[in-house]
Amino acid sequence: MPGAIKFVENGTITSARGFTAGATYAGLKTYAADKLDLGLIFSETPCTAAGVFTTSAIRSPSVTVCQEHIAAGPVRGLVVNAGIANACVGEQGYKDAQEATSLAAARLGVRPQEVLICSTGVIGVELPMSLIRSGISKIDLAADGGHMVARAMMTTDTRPKEAAVTFQAGGRQINMGGVAKGAGMIHPNMATMLAFVATDAAVEPRLLQTALREAADTSFNMVTVDGDTSTNDSLLVMANGAAGNRPIAAGSPDAAIFQEALRQLCVHLAREMARDGEGASHLIVVEINGARNTADARRAARTIASSSLVKSAVYGSDPNWGRVLAALGRSGASVDENQIDLFVNGVCIMEGGKPIPFHRDAVVALMRGPEVSFRLQLNLGDGQATAWGCDLTEQYVIINSAYTT
Amino acid sequence: MPGAIKFVENGTITSARGFTAGATYAGLKTYAADKLDLGLIFSETPCTAAGVFTTSAIRSPSVTVCQEHIAAGPVRGLVVNAGIANACVGEQGYKDAQEATSLAAARLGVRPQEVLICSTGVIGVELPMSLIRSGISKIDLAADGGHMVARAMMTTDTRPKEAAVTFQAGGRQINMGGVAKGAGMIHPNMATMLAFVATDAAVEPRLLQTALREAADTSFNMVTVDGDTSTNDSLLVMANGAAGNRPIAAGSPDAAIFQEALRQLCVHLAREMARDGEGASHLIVVEINGARNTADARRAARTIASSSLVKSAVYGSDPNWGRVLAALGRSGASVDENQIDLFVNGVCIMEGGKPIPFHRDAVVALMRGPEVSFRLQLNLGDGQATAWGCDLTEQYVIINSAYTT
Repeated sequence: MPGAIKFVENGTITSARGFTAGATYAGLKTYAADKLDLGLIFSETPCTAAGVFTTSAIRSPSVTVCQEHIAAGPVRGLVVNAGIANACVGEQGYKDAQEATSLAAARLGVRPQEVLICSTGVIGVELPMSLIRSGISKIDLAADGGHMVARAMMTTDTRPKEAAVTFQAGGRQINMGGVAKGAGMIHPNMATMLAFVATDAAVEPRLLQTALREAADTSFNMVTVDGDTSTNDSLLVMANGAAGNRPIAAGSPDAAIFQEALRQLCVHLAREMARDGEGASHLIVVEINGARNTADARRAARTIASSSLVKSAVYGSDPNWGRVLAALGRSGASVDENQIDLFVNGVCIMEGGKPIPFHRDAVVALMRGPEVSFRLQLNLGDGQATAWGCDLTEQYVIINSAYTT
Repeated sequence: MPGAIKFVENGTITSARGFTAGATYAGLKTYAADKLDLGLIFSETPCTAAGVFTTSAIRSPSVTVCQEHIAAGPVRGLVVNAGIANACVGEQGYKDAQEATSLAAARLGVRPQEVLICSTGVIGVELPMSLIRSGISKIDLAADGGHMVARAMMTTDTRPKEAAVTFQAGGRQINMGGVAKGAGMIHPNMATMLAFVATDAAVEPRLLQTALREAADTSFNMVTVDGDTSTNDSLLVMANGAAGNRPIAAGSPDAAIFQEALRQLCVHLAREMARDGEGASHLIVVEINGARNTADARRAARTIASSSLVKSAVYGSDPNWGRVLAALGRSGASVDENQIDLFVNGVCIMEGGKPIPFHRDAVVALMRGPEVSFRLQLNLGDGQATAWGCDLTEQYVIINSAYTT
């Protein structure tokens, strides 16, 4: 059983030893109050790195370059820009992504292939390279610079998303920190989810990739704001070994705690992303138990959390179980209608598929809190999954329509 | 090549010979201005019938009974109620659906198994059988009663949806009429799509089922309002042979024109459904050409038409091609980014994957019309499909949240 994993106060990506970071306002973002839009993360020593990327058939060349640099071996840093996604700009996008990593590499004193890149923002606009060039030259790295990167990567996010955990492995204290930007939409374009994790653990490369994929599956891949996968979605992890532990190998007890720590950190950031979805006033948590299998549980949880009708009902604090069941029914998961128990914020309102009398006003009052949970017991097997989402509000529509014409 | 298919003025389901219909207010709907909620459709002679039903794992017993009665052989009529979906009410729902068909059969002078049933409305509430009983006894059948049924099946629809076509087959004039209710949500529950078609053609049973399935695939199955499949979705067709033609058989020239007429009628009703989606201010038409195959084209068209970001952009009359491409990219269809041409209301704004300069104000003005079209040429093959949807407005959110608490 893994040992204790603790969230640290004021944690961020530079909570991991040997990582520094910084950010500046290069002039790429014009719409954000928070005037930072270009960030650098640096590791004093080479890192094992892994990534999980958008599955979209149309992707930013920044993603392509990032994948190539991860494949090329150890990395030393990462450059991230907000404001422009570097997507749908033809061949220039690939050249610009390469040049941005070269500029960052020169600033950091490393090779271009050792620098990862992520972009988020408007589609169809080329990166203004002169602004990137002068911006990178202005960035100062600091031991607590993670906080600045967390702000620099924001688009329509209303607040930065960052956290760090600490745990023991191989007799050493391991630190692991992360930053993320949420599924907010950007004029005139789309949501992008970016998340970066840094750890001072030494980790075998194959384990790092496996652990990241597993963590993504139960965290970021279970978050939904509006169902729109972006051209730029990226989740990256860098492990520099500054803790001095023997590299964690797959199958070891340390691998289990490392995996669990990474999962908890990713879940934390994913929840924050859902909570800060565009126009959101409530976090929605959908927990499925007793599904026939895990795939069914994931399908059901995601479908319910992304239903426009469920999201609208949550906005109205309406314990509208019919919409939850309708979404479950169309999710593709095996369901026996007469076996379903449903709890709203802990109150059972349906048992064995039949609605049971409940104090409506009390449930409505519970739903007025910041978090609304739907817990379903399908009583068919052991499948379990949790998904996070947010409610659908007039504000979402206004953000994504009214301000452009 | 099929002969001429003409839409007739003021057409409805009783435009087909030998069909009568009527409706009454039984007291099941409390929220609609249009006070009709229970309808009957009757054929003077036995009909070949076919149906396509919701794929949801949770479905109304009205759907189950309807399927059983279609399987039992020729049908003579249909009873439809709005206001209560007869879903998620335990075993009572099946008994009530059976009793409702028995009551309708007694009123029509036929056997219960000869009567189909559809319900739409609130989930989790039992059908009030005494209201159904007294309601059915009050319904008078009339030659133009289709108009009343079209109103009686409405829930949050703002207007009835009905049409009829006429064409020649087997040397006879064939009439075919239909009524539908749209994907509107009902307090406190969900969208239901119902559509009924009646024709005076004689049609072989197997052809009728095949033709209906094909028509559904390119019409109702390509409509999206909010992605929520209901527990009660049903599409039914009844063919009574009153035209006196020799039964139309699969593979014959008459089968081709019958298929095409049915498709055109279904597409018309499906478009009306999308146009009248909850809170909608624009009909969205997404046409995909040159996809690798038909399945890819359908996937791409449906994904774009159902994207919350695209829907919000249309509401704001924003020619936001980045969102269209992002939806295309995540649709699962094969895409070569450098091959895509995109037209908005006929104006080419992207060619070979690159945005081309366009007169933004002119395109915005076009998008302010009642219909916004996105036509994409993927240049990869022969796959073609069209999907219909509607924009996402504050009104949608208000309808589905604000009025319940």
